[in-house]
Amino acid sequence: MKNMHYIHMLLDTNMENTGELLMTHTQDLFPTRLEREANMFERLDPVIHTPESRATDGPLSRDRLREFDDKGFLFFDSFFSRDEMDGFIQELAEYQQNQALKQEEGTILEPGTEEIRTIFGIHEISDRFDRLTREPRLLKMVQQILDSDVYIHQSRINYKPGFKGKGFNWHSDFETWHSEDGMPGMRCVSCSIVMTDNNEFNGPLMLIPGSHRNFIPCVGQTPENNYRESLKNQTLGVPGEQDLKRMMDRGFIEAPKGPAGSMIMFECNTLHGSNSNMSCWPRSNLFFVYNSVENTLEEPYCGNRPRPQFLANRRSWAPLKPV
Amino acid sequence: MKNMHYIHMLLDTNMENTGELLMTHTQDLFPTRLEREANMFERLDPVIHTPESRATDGPLSRDRLREFDDKGFLFFDSFFSRDEMDGFIQELAEYQQNQALKQEEGTILEPGTEEIRTIFGIHEISDRFDRLTREPRLLKMVQQILDSDVYIHQSRINYKPGFKGKGFNWHSDFETWHSEDGMPGMRCVSCSIVMTDNNEFNGPLMLIPGSHRNFIPCVGQTPENNYRESLKNQTLGVPGEQDLKRMMDRGFIEAPKGPAGSMIMFECNTLHGSNSNMSCWPRSNLFFVYNSVENTLEEPYCGNRPRPQFLANRRSWAPLKPV
Repeated sequence: MKNMHYIHMLLDTNMENTGELLMTHTQDLFPTRLEREANMFERLDPVIHTPESRATDGPLSRDRLREFDDKGFLFFDSFFSRDEMDGFIQELAEYQQNQALKQEEGTILEPGTEEIRTIFGIHEISDRFDRLTREPRLLKMVQQILDSDVYIHQSRINYKPGFKGKGFNWHSDFETWHSEDGMPGMRCVSCSIVMTDNNEFNGPLMLIPGSHRNFIPCVGQTPENNYRESLKNQTLGVPGEQDLKRMMDRGFIEAPKGPAGSMIMFECNTLHGSNSNMSCWPRSNLFFVYNSVENTLEEPYCGNRPRPQFLANRRSWAPLKPV
Repeated sequence: MKNMHYIHMLLDTNMENTGELLMTHTQDLFPTRLEREANMFERLDPVIHTPESRATDGPLSRDRLREFDDKGFLFFDSFFSRDEMDGFIQELAEYQQNQALKQEEGTILEPGTEEIRTIFGIHEISDRFDRLTREPRLLKMVQQILDSDVYIHQSRINYKPGFKGKGFNWHSDFETWHSEDGMPGMRCVSCSIVMTDNNEFNGPLMLIPGSHRNFIPCVGQTPENNYRESLKNQTLGVPGEQDLKRMMDRGFIEAPKGPAGSMIMFECNTLHGSNSNMSCWPRSNLFFVYNSVENTLEEPYCGNRPRPQFLANRRSWAPLKPV
């Protein structure tokens, strides 16, 4: 039943975005990385995949589901307690001393230093973090929204140190995961769990409410190994200013704040970004991406080689089981 | 009676900050731009210059004076009405088309564009803005705090366009005005009036409450014409991270927000900065610096030539009269 809800319209994205419809081998319902600007269009997939009749079978209330449907994200203040977080925070501190880990391809260092900036694939490195991805409260909410079993598409820890932590440009994760990883549709949810107190000044996650409802094609061809650049500074896959303005004028911007253990669950197509950390207080967060087992990866739609495993899991799509 | 409150301790700042006291011609009570880090120390000047006996002779209440004394700034939500602002906003829009103005030394363009980023000396260019500096409510509050007549040390308009507007590093204005302009003591107040609605996302002014109580010497020799670089990206005159952290841990950070016409009045030594404008909404603000006529400029303490008139007024120190 995979992708049963897609309109079977075949579009050749190598045709300079002329809008001509051609029968080719490439089925790409979300053409992006184009040579010229193209209009945004309404998403093809539902946001809440569970049908109305079974909507309240999970832990999220009808109101919370409606909120997710409207805004494209939910905030959970102190979803985990500080006690629950302590072990994770301790483990993170230890990683900063782990020389072997710093050699891994999935570990990104701050330029010119030995300080870790991001660790990808944290659930494959650490039992503790692996168990956290299968925490029953978390897993059931995600399954309720996606109406299926799920697996981890990507996991990571971001360190945003005081004074030095740089921001991220506005983007939809789905836009990259579709074009560079071959994720066919929007049936995927991310959870960002803050490991440090989150305030207005240490570069919190900012989201545009309602932006998940439209797909914005982006301009620019994707070079091979684009991820090496985009992990430092994303310039491709960033929507045009006019489209961003339209989204912001309609939905404004929100930046949920809370103590360590708070969580933002957001739809894969919700536009988000963050500013630099101008405070002295670090901001570390944990990031789990849950993809539906009905939405597993195909060949990248941009035509490049698939990105490495640590960015886009192609090794195991077995459904996660709660711990 | 100029500088009567200074301790007459003479310190040679060219001695690599050894702390040795020497009798020289250079009287510098706030040594900065040093070769090595030096400890912060308590400010020598009062914050509220008016003696307690006359404290309530002006428009600011005793509570508001105490707040300014404690925090180093005051926020005035909608100090001017939007109607009052309209004429100024209109005039600003017209400047963007003014080719002659763009040739002026005091007009700074966005690199690589014809867009104006900053206009210095706006009160000398425009009658409307000149009158605004002498607005009685404003002027009386400043005189009340500084207990003297005042003149304009510097005025400017900053444009921070949507998406593109860059932030400013943490700094004390007094640190620069002292070292590069020869402002002897802390008897000076700035007013920042927002011309556009100010929110969490368009790069509002951030201040560290209580930071005005200490002077933080900064590291690094000042090259001639440093202002050409520092107007784009200030790297000199930025306190060290440990000192900043001490200030933030003690006083936190505040970023007052409000509609166009709102005003922040802040002490010349209050640490402030701002983040990039990641929203689509521009943030323009007007900036008037009122210096006491008892605190007029001497030779720059860093030993360089004085900066241009548009940055540091040496032409007229005549007391401002209310309109």
